[in-house]
Formats: sequence, C-alpha cells, structure tokens
Amino acid sequence: MEPRDPNFEPRVRASFERQRAMHTIGARIVRVEPGLVELELPFRDDLTQQHGFLHAGIVTTLVDSACGYAALSVMDRESAVLSVEYKVNLLAPAVGERMRAIGRVLKSGRTLVVCSGEVIAVAGGNETVVSIMQATMMAVRGRPGLVD
Amino acid sequence: MEPRDPNFEPRVRASFERQRAMHTIGARIVRVEPGLVELELPFRDDLTQQHGFLHAGIVTTLVDSACGYAALSVMDRESAVLSVEYKVNLLAPAVGERMRAIGRVLKSGRTLVVCSGEVIAVAGGNETVVSIMQATMMAVRGRPGLVD
Amino acid sequence: MEPRDPNFEPRVRASFERQRAMHTIGARIVRVEPGLVELELPFRDDLTQQHGFLHAGIVTTLVDSACGYAALSVMDRESAVLSVEYKVNLLAPAVGERMRAIGRVLKSGRTLVVCSGEVIAVAGGNETVVSIMQATMMAVRGRPGLVD
Amino acid sequence: MEPRDPNFEPRVRASFERQRAMHTIGARIVRVEPGLVELELPFRDDLTQQHGFLHAGIVTTLVDSACGYAALSVMDRESAVLSVEYKVNLLAPAVGERMRAIGRVLKSGRTLVVCSGEVIAVAGGNETVVSIMQATMMAVRGRPGLVD
Repeated sequence: MEPRDPNFEPRVRASFERQRAMHTIGARIVRVEPGLVELELPFRDDLTQQHGFLHAGIVTTLVDSACGYAALSVMDRESAVLSVEYKVNLLAPAVGERMRAIGRVLKSGRTLVVCSGEVIAVAGGNETVVSIMQATMMAVRGRPGLVD
Repeated sequence: MEPRDPNFEPRVRASFERQRAMHTIGARIVRVEPGLVELELPFRDDLTQQHGFLHAGIVTTLVDSACGYAALSVMDRESAVLSVEYKVNLLAPAVGERMRAIGRVLKSGRTLVVCSGEVIAVAGGNETVVSIMQATMMAVRGRPGLVD
Repeated sequence: MEPRDPNFEPRVRASFERQRAMHTIGARIVRVEPGLVELELPFRDDLTQQHGFLHAGIVTTLVDSACGYAALSVMDRESAVLSVEYKVNLLAPAVGERMRAIGRVLKSGRTLVVCSGEVIAVAGGNETVVSIMQATMMAVRGRPGLVD
Repeated sequence: MEPRDPNFEPRVRASFERQRAMHTIGARIVRVEPGLVELELPFRDDLTQQHGFLHAGIVTTLVDSACGYAALSVMDRESAVLSVEYKVNLLAPAVGERMRAIGRVLKSGRTLVVCSGEVIAVAGGNETVVSIMQATMMAVRGRPGLVD
C-alpha cells in the first residue's frame, strides 16, 4: 500500500499521543506501516465488565484507534481522520496479559477508507482472536470532528 | 415490555456496579425499566481523542452497557448477558457537559436480544444525538463470558 | 426535514424506475417525503430461502433501496446516491402477503447521510417488524458508482 | 476446521437447492469445504441498480448465502441455519462477467457461528473485491426460521 504522505509515521504517532483516552486506558502504539497500525494494551482490572473480562467497549476503543490510525497512515497530510461507523463481533472473553489490536486498510478512497481490525488476547504465550471490526473512516479537511 | 423476572431492577443495578470500567470512566446508571436502561457520563478531558471530543470507543463503551443492561432487564434471573456484536454510527462530535446513553430492547428472544441505542450530548440545555447503535445481546446460562 | 432540492420527489421516483432489480423482484415505491421513502414488495415464492421465508438478502435489497432513496430525497440535485455500508438484523421470519420497507434519514451531511430502515411483514391485517437496518449513504457528484 | 457432521457437503448442497431465491437470481454453488462455501453469480442486467451495477442487495443476497452455508457446513446435522445479522461494506462497483462470493467461518460456537464474506467481481481476467461482510449465523434446532 502506497502512502500519499511519505512522512506518515510521525504524523500518526503525534496524533496518537494527543488521544488522551489512549493514555488513560494505558494503550501504546507498537507498529506503524502504510495501511497498518498495531496498538497494545496491558490487561487492567479497572477496565473490566461484570465477569472480569475487558469491557467490550474498551476492546472497541483500542481497535477503533488502530483502524483509525491505519486509515490516517494512507491519507494525505492535510487530512484528519474521523470514525464514521464500525461493527464489532466479540468472539471470546478478552482476558490475558495484554491485548494486541491490529487495524488494516482494505480500501483507500479519497474521502472514505474501509478498514478491518482484530484484537488478539495474549495469555501465557498463546494468542486468541477475541474481537473483529469492520470500519469506515473518513478523511476530513478543515472541519475536524464533523462527520459530514 | 414484560420482564421475565419481576426483580429485574436490583439485578441490573448490582451487575452494573460490578462493571469496573463504568466506575473508571465515571458512568452512572440513571434509569432502569423493563427493556430500557439509561446511563450518564459527565464529560472528561482524559477520555478524549485527538480533537478533544469524547473518544468514539468511550461513547461505544457507554451505549454498549446501556444496551446490555436493557437486554438483561428482560432476561430470566438465571441468565447473564453478553454482547455478541454491535454496529455504531458516529453522527456528531461527542462534546458537552455530559452524555446520556439509552439502550432499548427491540426484540426479546430466549437466547438473543436485539437492542437499539443512542447517545445524546447535553450542552447548555441542548441535546444532540451523537451516536446510534444496533446490537445483539445473548442470554448466557452457566457459561458466563463465552459467546457460544 | 428540509430537502435541498424542492423537486426531490420526481428525481427519486425516476431513479427508482431505473433500478431494474426492483422490477425483477416486484417492488413498488409507495411514499416519498423529505427524508422518508417507503417501498412495498408482495410476497413471492421464488424469492424465498430454504424454509419458505423471504431470503434475508431480498429483504435487505428492499430496505437498502428504501434507505438509499430516503437519502437521495435530501441531497442536492447534482448528487447521485450510493450505499457505503449497512448493517441488518433479522428479527422474525419474513412471511405474509407483503413487505413494507421504510427508510428514514437520521443525519444529513454534505457527503454522508445516515439512515435507519425497517421491514414490516403484513399478514392477515397484522404487522410485524421483521428486519431493521442502520445504513450510511454517500452523495456522489460526477463519479457515480464509486465509493471514494 | 473440523465439521461436526462428516456428511456436511450433501446437506449444504441440498439446502442450497431449496433456496428458490438463488435459482431466481441465477446463483450456483461451486465449492463446499468445512467452514468455507463459494457461490457464483453471472452478471445480469435485470439485477442492477440505477447506474447499471449489480444492486447492493443482490450482492448481499449472494454473500449472505455463502456465509450461511459456510456456517451450516460446521453445524451438527440436527441444525438448520439462520442469519441473525450482518454488516456489509460496498467497496467498488459490482460489474463484470460474474461475481464470486466466498463465506468463511471465523468462530464456530454451539449456537452462534461468526463468518466473514467477500464478493469478488471477475472482469476480463481481473478480480476486484467489491464487497465484504461480517455476519452472525445461528444454529436452530426444532424451530426453523425463528431467531430466538
């Protein structure tokens, strides 16, 4: 996948650093390639639901950012990225030492970028896909924040 | 909508209290009716994305719990609830003093419960729908946490 | 909801007439308002799945067109409409004399229009919601057919 | 992927033959493996939308059946399959000589089976992914047709 902006990586990393929610939940960015971003989240008890698994919404938060930044990595440098919509299936309990979330660009248009994401639980050396996402991201120029 | 368990309200509230992620983000449960649950989240800067709006995943976390507990409110008392999947559209920036998330049951089956949810931003007396969800929840008996 | 083009109704009806798939399955357009379109499909055995119910994909075809034309009804007259994505839940068997599909605009942006749809089975004077849709439509200018 | 019923292939093919909608649109089943089904649809003008592309709903009909039968291929022989819900992104115009729809099982539970699907347009020897699906299917025993 060819990035429109050769300087995509620092742009993605700088935007990630501004996502205060990522700091709050303890997520890090671990891989940035053209059309692919991977995040990592150590398991934390204070992010769980009633059965002690990571809350589905926290899993979604992580993979939404992975998909959003995968999309941003292929956008031109004037564009900001915004989530238009996504669909998530929860496949298995999100438990383990940490979660890996990988976002990948499937189709890169001028305005819309379609991504697929997955969240993998790492536990005792084993990896299990716990969630998958299908997402639509939007390149926004000059009106950040407004899905329009 | 007729609850299968007349004692649904304390059951819903007790389960909500066990969702540590809700405490961490600062959400409260404000309404529990048969097939309807409303949560509230005061805006917090440490839950934002790069433009200063509430992160889409945090919005999702809130409305997922609203839908999940709406579903639980109509399940029998032996059932735990699990999110099977959901789809979210982000319609407007999630900014304001607080967010209201309302989950409603559309179809209540023995195993699956289909819900719709919305998140409303409250800012200066005005209300704006910022996100909508269509979700499938599952009644799980004896194997909590496993979508099966 | 305010239409951008006062002449929206003949524009919607003319485009519907060009959808040959609608003729093939036997669908008619029965209502066109700003932001709302209703279609109708008499039940036909040759559109069924293995249990004798209308195939989920045919139900989707109907409600996709209803949502798409609801979106077109609020677009300017230079725009064509294209389905970006949708999510459908099937709630009950699609059986009866006929199906009513209603598409409604929830959010009308310059580029993207978010809609909700429902399909109602009419059988012996009773109405049952058999399917719901949450959809994203796109206004396309000059490049019809290309989600971009 | 291990089928629960070694006799899965004739069961899948026999059910496909009962889907009258598949005959009506002209789809054939071309591959049945444990957890994977491929269908094929020659392009037909009478299945198009207003720009002459295959209607998104017809594309959905095809890939819904591919995913549904992929799911059935891993179910036990007492189970019928039913579509609970799906989400589809349309990536490119569905034009060409024919469409290939491939459904794959991602997670096979006792009750729910999660699938991913794709539709590939074949035109002049080139293949283009025109649509992707993320779907939840249900094993139904004794109450065919009822998502419950």
